[in-house]
Amino acid sequence: MYLTQGLHRAVQQKADNIATLFGTRQTTFRQLADRVARLAGALQNLGMQPGDRVAMLAQNSDYYLEYQMAVPWGAGVLNPCNTRWSAAEILYALEDSGSLILIVDETFRAMAQTLRDKTSTVREFVYCGDGPVPKGMHGYEALIAKTAPVEDALRRGNDLAGIFYTGGTTGFPKGVMLTHTNMISSGLALLGERFAKPDAVYLHAAPMFHLADIGMAMPHWIEGNTHTVIPSFSPVLVLDTIERHRVTHVLLIPTMIQMLVDHPAMREPRDLSSLQVIVYGASAITEAVLDRAMDALPGIEFMQAYGMTELAPVVSVSPGWAHQDEGRKVGKHRSGGRAIYCSEIRIVDPEGRKVPLGTTGEIIARGPNVMLGYWGKPELTAAVLRNGWMHTGDAGYMEKDGFIYVVDRLKDMIISGGENVYSAEVENAITQHPSVATCAVIGVPDDKWGESVHAVVVLKAGMELTAEALTAHVKSLIAGYKCPRSVEFREELPLSGAGKLLKTMLRKPFWEGHERQVH
Amino acid sequence: MYLTQGLHRAVQQKADNIATLFGTRQTTFRQLADRVARLAGALQNLGMQPGDRVAMLAQNSDYYLEYQMAVPWGAGVLNPCNTRWSAAEILYALEDSGSLILIVDETFRAMAQTLRDKTSTVREFVYCGDGPVPKGMHGYEALIAKTAPVEDALRRGNDLAGIFYTGGTTGFPKGVMLTHTNMISSGLALLGERFAKPDAVYLHAAPMFHLADIGMAMPHWIEGNTHTVIPSFSPVLVLDTIERHRVTHVLLIPTMIQMLVDHPAMREPRDLSSLQVIVYGASAITEAVLDRAMDALPGIEFMQAYGMTELAPVVSVSPGWAHQDEGRKVGKHRSGGRAIYCSEIRIVDPEGRKVPLGTTGEIIARGPNVMLGYWGKPELTAAVLRNGWMHTGDAGYMEKDGFIYVVDRLKDMIISGGENVYSAEVENAITQHPSVATCAVIGVPDDKWGESVHAVVVLKAGMELTAEALTAHVKSLIAGYKCPRSVEFREELPLSGAGKLLKTMLRKPFWEGHERQVH
Repeated sequence: MYLTQGLHRAVQQKADNIATLFGTRQTTFRQLADRVARLAGALQNLGMQPGDRVAMLAQNSDYYLEYQMAVPWGAGVLNPCNTRWSAAEILYALEDSGSLILIVDETFRAMAQTLRDKTSTVREFVYCGDGPVPKGMHGYEALIAKTAPVEDALRRGNDLAGIFYTGGTTGFPKGVMLTHTNMISSGLALLGERFAKPDAVYLHAAPMFHLADIGMAMPHWIEGNTHTVIPSFSPVLVLDTIERHRVTHVLLIPTMIQMLVDHPAMREPRDLSSLQVIVYGASAITEAVLDRAMDALPGIEFMQAYGMTELAPVVSVSPGWAHQDEGRKVGKHRSGGRAIYCSEIRIVDPEGRKVPLGTTGEIIARGPNVMLGYWGKPELTAAVLRNGWMHTGDAGYMEKDGFIYVVDRLKDMIISGGENVYSAEVENAITQHPSVATCAVIGVPDDKWGESVHAVVVLKAGMELTAEALTAHVKSLIAGYKCPRSVEFREELPLSGAGKLLKTMLRKPFWEGHERQVH
Repeated sequence: MYLTQGLHRAVQQKADNIATLFGTRQTTFRQLADRVARLAGALQNLGMQPGDRVAMLAQNSDYYLEYQMAVPWGAGVLNPCNTRWSAAEILYALEDSGSLILIVDETFRAMAQTLRDKTSTVREFVYCGDGPVPKGMHGYEALIAKTAPVEDALRRGNDLAGIFYTGGTTGFPKGVMLTHTNMISSGLALLGERFAKPDAVYLHAAPMFHLADIGMAMPHWIEGNTHTVIPSFSPVLVLDTIERHRVTHVLLIPTMIQMLVDHPAMREPRDLSSLQVIVYGASAITEAVLDRAMDALPGIEFMQAYGMTELAPVVSVSPGWAHQDEGRKVGKHRSGGRAIYCSEIRIVDPEGRKVPLGTTGEIIARGPNVMLGYWGKPELTAAVLRNGWMHTGDAGYMEKDGFIYVVDRLKDMIISGGENVYSAEVENAITQHPSVATCAVIGVPDDKWGESVHAVVVLKAGMELTAEALTAHVKSLIAGYKCPRSVEFREELPLSGAGKLLKTMLRKPFWEGHERQVH
């Protein structure tokens, strides 16, 4: 199994079909394979040896798709950079992975100069942006034009396909090593789960450096479908592109779905009849947003994918039927779904024993999609990979039909007086108050109870609320021992580069001089 | 990836669904997993160590499904015996594979006694048939009843899953070694190709020792669908079972399709509305049979699978649309289809170079489905597996959309005066004569032309025909150099145990003292 296989198959079976669409540019599969084979040769000429890492720091474009194919075609290893990270964080990922070549676009032109001054590993820079090629960099199109196509090196199976940096919420970026088999077996399973079908058109609206988009696009690569790309998410651009290119499948993260359905452009008359499937994932969706989305987009199948980069990236899928009618009535739409084909899920206690159905424990997963490990971090790898099981760090429970429900990150679970309190449950109760914009619930040290529940709350603009009123509201919804013992109002919450809440930062001042036990 | 994964997943997601149906017996997935775990333990108690081969010689039944799961569950390797072989041939496969345990049913009770007298490797016999357990054998149900369930040994990935004997037409049986990844990657690809869908009911009507049935059932194992089994093919039993168990998917080899559609029972009123897909393969189908089948079973999707045991077993699929309307008009229904997901097909000349589209050459294939090799036959393996490409020995050509057309076995191709003559093409022309029942075309030595075309013809009962009249008929259909130079009428053709035509036997008397070059 190898990443470029779908491209070869498409050239054999539908060479003149459209492979990529971006702005006014388009390529057929024949043209794409030719460009990929040339770019692979160019990267080899720049020094890429088998197994060498090649990074890309860019907005979404068709070039990102070429990069994803050309690097493995030329025997290299992918290292896509998180566009929301600071220069220091990106530099860390480049240095840690030992990337040899960096491809950048015009958005990151200035940052590339900073990186050039500081990097000790990146030797060649390739510019794929608009305007003149900066001094000291190679022009992307010029490289393709002047290089002869090379044969596919056919890296495959357990060969390393990419290093994908993750870990924004812990402040400790880790390079997740995924093999070709990891990524293709995941893609095949998702194809079976109907994440793609013949002649579908996939829209890259989520950031293409992220494995969520790479993973959801994989079944479309395998099938040989058309990829349409927008530079970055905007509701209008998404709607325009669906209409213009007859998009059938798209991945949207929940905040994107919310922005889309709340946008005035949604109320304009449009032909969105081509759209069949919206896959969502990467974070939880509220019922209110799901309701609005399903109302605004009738007839569209909503499917949830749960997983993480370490699982390449999906391990469970909640199908369309779980979101409506009977599925909805029994609460299946709140589930992270069931294990995908060829993957296994278990819920275990801290000693690794299976817990009964309905009991919350750690979600662990096994299958051909489980990562090789963290690049250069054998201890961290050993901590999460035990007997082939990836320990997700998520707390959840399973119902008798295999549907899992994620209740919290394990490390965010609060143990107060011997009782487990899931911060996510408390947060859900707090945000149901009409004055609350957002909140975070953490455990803080407590001499009597071990930990006590502490809420950090951001109110909606112009709203006022007392701690007492909020606590009373929460008490009307959940058990007393889960209610916050202390409430703190703030203007905003600390977020990572990827937009994830940083509870570690919130907890830090409380825990100075204490040792917090994580389960 | 491993064979038992679908069973584990089904237990987690649908424990109380029906897993197997045979006669009056049925098991749920929970029951099946329990029986499989006990049988695995029993086989271990009988001496099965990791990697040991366990054979089964039986008609189709639900026990065959339990065998297919229990052997890998207990860390063993499958070796299903060809029920059409003679005792001597079966003994060869048992001895060659070094099988330790043999499971037999009542049909093979007598043969088992013969095998017991002669085998040097099989130490334990398990009897899964009706009636009392023969002396010296273990009772299948008694073993399951008295043995505690064991944990799945989780043989997987590149571990050997089974040795499948093949090679009836060459007279030299070879044990094809397939890994778990071979079989599951093939199953996942076929799932993507829509050979299974959720809640489907698969009917095992073809012999279960054969990889055609094992392979077509694989996507149903992965999906967790119901398996219905009949002891052996009969048109009435197939129709009854479809109606009674609401069968949705079935594999039928072309002769079965012919027997089915020509049977009087087809004209009785029946509710076959559950049936959705008929997969056919393992040999060519004539257009006449396909026409009759599609007329008799309107609304059913016919899909062709092309491959061989060495390819676990499918490498290309011809979808439903190729069989009707536009596909039909352009002749796609005569094609073996296009490469399945994650597999590659090429057409090459004797030097291994790709030939142009439309040019006949050898069909070669590469992918995660390609066998490990032939058990204990490294030279034979090296002859067919080169740079990861399986050389199928089939002659064929490819069209620009990747559809392949199999024209002949390479070794049956006749080179006469420097021209390639495909025996299959000549046979098609001959069998179009209304007096001909069947025929075989071979190359015989010719001093002038190297080889000349020789036809061995079986007439329909009560028909008469001269060689001259037949040659005139053939000349009206194909080029003169392809017409038989000599014609011989016979009562019957030599067939292998698996019902395949043995051209080697036909050729043998002609080639005594000559050396025939095979391409």
